[in-house]
Amino acid sequence: MSTPARRGRPGYDLESLLQVAVKLFNERGYDGTSMEDLSRKLGITKSAIYHHVPSKEELLRLAVDRALNGLFAVAAETESFEGRAIEKLEHLVRGSVLVLVEQLPFVTLLLRVRGNTKIERAALARRREFDRLVTELVKQAETEGDVRPDIDPAVTARLLYGMVNSLIEWYRPRRGSAGTELADAVCKIAFDGLRTQ
Amino acid sequence: MSTPARRGRPGYDLESLLQVAVKLFNERGYDGTSMEDLSRKLGITKSAIYHHVPSKEELLRLAVDRALNGLFAVAAETESFEGRAIEKLEHLVRGSVLVLVEQLPFVTLLLRVRGNTKIERAALARRREFDRLVTELVKQAETEGDVRPDIDPAVTARLLYGMVNSLIEWYRPRRGSAGTELADAVCKIAFDGLRTQ
Repeated sequence: MSTPARRGRPGYDLESLLQVAVKLFNERGYDGTSMEDLSRKLGITKSAIYHHVPSKEELLRLAVDRALNGLFAVAAETESFEGRAIEKLEHLVRGSVLVLVEQLPFVTLLLRVRGNTKIERAALARRREFDRLVTELVKQAETEGDVRPDIDPAVTARLLYGMVNSLIEWYRPRRGSAGTELADAVCKIAFDGLRTQ
Repeated sequence: MSTPARRGRPGYDLESLLQVAVKLFNERGYDGTSMEDLSRKLGITKSAIYHHVPSKEELLRLAVDRALNGLFAVAAETESFEGRAIEKLEHLVRGSVLVLVEQLPFVTLLLRVRGNTKIERAALARRREFDRLVTELVKQAETEGDVRPDIDPAVTARLLYGMVNSLIEWYRPRRGSAGTELADAVCKIAFDGLRTQ
């Protein structure tokens, strides 16, 4: 189907449509956003949206997969490393912060998923898989004597990613503010602590 | 107004009504929960609810105030301390974890408030006031040479409470699991880091 050209309205490809959809989902909640809302926001008909994507669920899938694929790509890099588990863990935390900063709206949507649909449950299952991976690294680093043994590794993993994931609540990208600086701050606090040594 | 007695339905006082309301708000979202939903859940009429509380907003206010009052009570204790800022900061973090654990549903609701109503905006303003207080303590501890000077105090404060607040996402109370153990874990990681010294 073709839609009449509108003055001043840019055309949308799947990528720009996805960006707008994710922004709207984050503002109003995924459940609270209809394709009607999205079509109004984009200034195009619903048919024009369906030309790009078969359903709202598919938009959600594309969005959360982007976030998850980013995180798992860092995990895969980490696994291929030679070296001690604590170095791998630090690489994973650093890389995760960069993924959050670079894909902020996508990760925000991912972290708010509650599991009402098949796609949401699949996303939650991949998140749990990622959590297990972090916990395993913490355990291994503890076995190697590099991480303090007095905290349950699962609790450590959750607190570590609690700090990382909190970025979606307060980080706002600014010109010239590098994600690497933030990644450094997270790693300094998490691995060496706030206290001057 | 009186309501017919229902077999097996306990009577509600304001406290038990508030507990059920907060649980429902957390499950469905505050905006997505009507007094009708609440009356169905409680198995009492809306009139019976209005006998205890004038509005849904008032239930929200009572709930977020309980969470905020808990956090500010710890802050007040902290201020009255003699001693170094880093000790005050540690006391504040430890006490905050205990408030989260003890008032989990109330703090969960507080941390999800988005600011659509006057009561929500007031809650957000008090949250910002608390954040400023944390940032000030971090700054002071840095001036006293006890906290590393290479991270912006506002970033440190946010990461610190990112870790603390993440509890609402994953902590589930169990019999015999003490909040103090969790508070210890948070303080160990935050102040001394994961790495063995």
